[in-house]
Amino acid sequence: MPGISIKGIHMPESPIRKLVPYAETAKKRGTKVYHLNIGQPDIKTPEIALEAVKNSAIEVLEYSRSEGSEIYREKIAAYYKKCDINVTAEEIIVTTGGSEALLFALGTIADPGDEIIIPEPFYANYNGFATSANIKVVPVFSKFEDNFALPPVEEFEKLITPKTKAILICNPGNPTGYLYSKEEIQKLAALVKKHDLFLIADEVYREFTYDGVQHYSILQEEGIDEYAIVIDSVSKRYSMCGARIGCLVSKNKAVITTALKFAQARLSPPTLAQIACEAALETPQSYFEDVITEYVERRNTLVAALEKIEGVQVAKPKGAFYCIVKLPIKNADNFAQWLLESFNYKGETIMVAPAAGFYSSPNIGLDEVRIAYVLKKEDLLNAATILEQALKAYPNE
Amino acid sequence: MPGISIKGIHMPESPIRKLVPYAETAKKRGTKVYHLNIGQPDIKTPEIALEAVKNSAIEVLEYSRSEGSEIYREKIAAYYKKCDINVTAEEIIVTTGGSEALLFALGTIADPGDEIIIPEPFYANYNGFATSANIKVVPVFSKFEDNFALPPVEEFEKLITPKTKAILICNPGNPTGYLYSKEEIQKLAALVKKHDLFLIADEVYREFTYDGVQHYSILQEEGIDEYAIVIDSVSKRYSMCGARIGCLVSKNKAVITTALKFAQARLSPPTLAQIACEAALETPQSYFEDVITEYVERRNTLVAALEKIEGVQVAKPKGAFYCIVKLPIKNADNFAQWLLESFNYKGETIMVAPAAGFYSSPNIGLDEVRIAYVLKKEDLLNAATILEQALKAYPNE
Ligand SMILES: Cc1ncc(COP(=O)(O)O)c(C=O)c1O
Ligand SMILES: Cc1ncc(COP(=O)(O)O)c(C=O)c1O
Repeated sequence: MPGISIKGIHMPESPIRKLVPYAETAKKRGTKVYHLNIGQPDIKTPEIALEAVKNSAIEVLEYSRSEGSEIYREKIAAYYKKCDINVTAEEIIVTTGGSEALLFALGTIADPGDEIIIPEPFYANYNGFATSANIKVVPVFSKFEDNFALPPVEEFEKLITPKTKAILICNPGNPTGYLYSKEEIQKLAALVKKHDLFLIADEVYREFTYDGVQHYSILQEEGIDEYAIVIDSVSKRYSMCGARIGCLVSKNKAVITTALKFAQARLSPPTLAQIACEAALETPQSYFEDVITEYVERRNTLVAALEKIEGVQVAKPKGAFYCIVKLPIKNADNFAQWLLESFNYKGETIMVAPAAGFYSSPNIGLDEVRIAYVLKKEDLLNAATILEQALKAYPNE
Repeated sequence: MPGISIKGIHMPESPIRKLVPYAETAKKRGTKVYHLNIGQPDIKTPEIALEAVKNSAIEVLEYSRSEGSEIYREKIAAYYKKCDINVTAEEIIVTTGGSEALLFALGTIADPGDEIIIPEPFYANYNGFATSANIKVVPVFSKFEDNFALPPVEEFEKLITPKTKAILICNPGNPTGYLYSKEEIQKLAALVKKHDLFLIADEVYREFTYDGVQHYSILQEEGIDEYAIVIDSVSKRYSMCGARIGCLVSKNKAVITTALKFAQARLSPPTLAQIACEAALETPQSYFEDVITEYVERRNTLVAALEKIEGVQVAKPKGAFYCIVKLPIKNADNFAQWLLESFNYKGETIMVAPAAGFYSSPNIGLDEVRIAYVLKKEDLLNAATILEQALKAYPNE
């Protein structure tokens, strides 16, 4: 029998995957499970987007251009203008989700054995994309106590080797909810210029910033046009994760030319979804205002409820819709499994994502979980009560 | 300025890409261009598929499961049953086009530096996927004179090294139109068993077989369950290339488990398109009969017209909708460019794909082009006339 590739064997599983069977068993037992473990918002997709697909007069569902349809890219460029980001359609490649944009970015800048530095904890699938490209992820530790602010530049510099090709940040952060300040972006800009590295910013949660703080994109920072690569996606912005549309944006011509070759090999991003996305760009501002208001309330509700629980600490999120929560337990993997396998409060339990899977270094974040506040406020309050009761009941061995 | 990856620099361009600007210039000059260069059929997508999307009651366009929606995979399994292929939903991973299935297959079985053997000429994007996975393509030469039948097994064996992980075939073939016989598949089956290699078969053109000959899938061959990986796609089957839905099929559990990890990293295949594809499976048999009848007529029309032209030879296709045509010229790259740049017959010209780009070995197929018969018969006849006139006018230096 022929053998699986080494990288295939080493491909990491998603940190929540192994909990799925336990959740299913819990449901079979009749226990209601609150899903705080995934970034699938319950928010409705803008009607205008779904209607556009319904009204389209397509007779032959053809490939689109590999770089995405011309009109759609023009409209994305116009969207960026509104975000105070100055890019043209030629500087944008439409991808199959932010996921594919990440794959293209890594393929474009790194060869097997090359390294990229990422502040941890980070979006766990970065590990998967890096493994599949045989690239080494070098984590730089960011602290719960600092709400996961940017680690000092010296910490990055200690890790830079001749194989380092890029620094990858997620802003606002999944799983941290941290929003980098303009000053932090400027520190990173200086750093990549000094060491001739790419700066890749995953900005898929750009719109999700709270407390009146504005998102500062790396594409707004002057002097790093050749260094900056932005990963973007419609998944969360318009609550249309299933569209599978994102994009890669860069003012570096060699990056676009090279990424386009990866795009050409896979022919085209999804055509129906591009129709939806083009229309989604016309979503009225009020939609976002409502969504942000909703998330702020959810965050406030959740954080307040969690902070009332003895021994529980929350790294207060300023963006996205996740937060890292420190629990008075030894091992969140066991706890998360126990919640599904052996616990219920009034017939209900919660599913959370153990945070260790978001750290690249071993044995870190063992007492932390990531909670996604993608549920209604009442549900979040119920979830907090369940957590409180669970912590009382948990043997914590 | 930071540097592009070596693999990024080496990512091949599609063999027709460099002609695109010339085609655009020709059109600007007012010359009508018949596109014989691409595999984008003009056939209508089954209405049932497009209607399903229009009638869907989706409010939140969510991620589907990473392996594809449960119902859709069940229905694909039922489709395979009808093709006399016995697989279950668990043996299927829905992918973003056959393209992504190829990427997952290569990632699952090969590491950087590993080799896969592919009969040439082959679908040019195999080069792109191999380059992006840092895998070496080892071509085995198949002959125009044999209509590109399977090369002798000894020719494969000469190329097998400890790094060889798989043999990849395309059946029916793009660009050859060749359909492997049951006996040829059995030879390959014996070969991969003997040398412990995977056998990957790209069967995206399964339905497109002519002259009453049946397609024989590697999944129908007994005794190679652990070896066989099938790449499939709805793109050509239902003329829905823009859906971006395909699948990877294998009865080897380790292959599915591993490919699923790649699938999980990118979250999900497109949701809207899966709705269309689920419905497309209900396409009445008459649709396929009409389509096949149409392609047979197109093929017959084209081949007959081409064979009448002095010095032109055609490798008669038995499947798919491509054929390799040998021309009385020195360099098809120059010829194809000249057709667009400097020639027209009654205000019309043709765009063809120089075949050298489908060979991995250098300096082969220089006098060959690939012609896709994806146009109406009248257009194919016009195209043949244009080719005839062009060959008379061409300086052929
Ligand atoms: C930080 C981050 N980046 C990228 C993605 C990929 O999303 P998609 O491929 O749906 O655009 C996600 C999805 O959750 C994410 O959280
Ligand atoms: C032989 C072959 N395999 C795979 C593909 C990929 O097609 P898709 O990604 O649209 O399924 C194509 C497309 O032309 C093809 O010709």
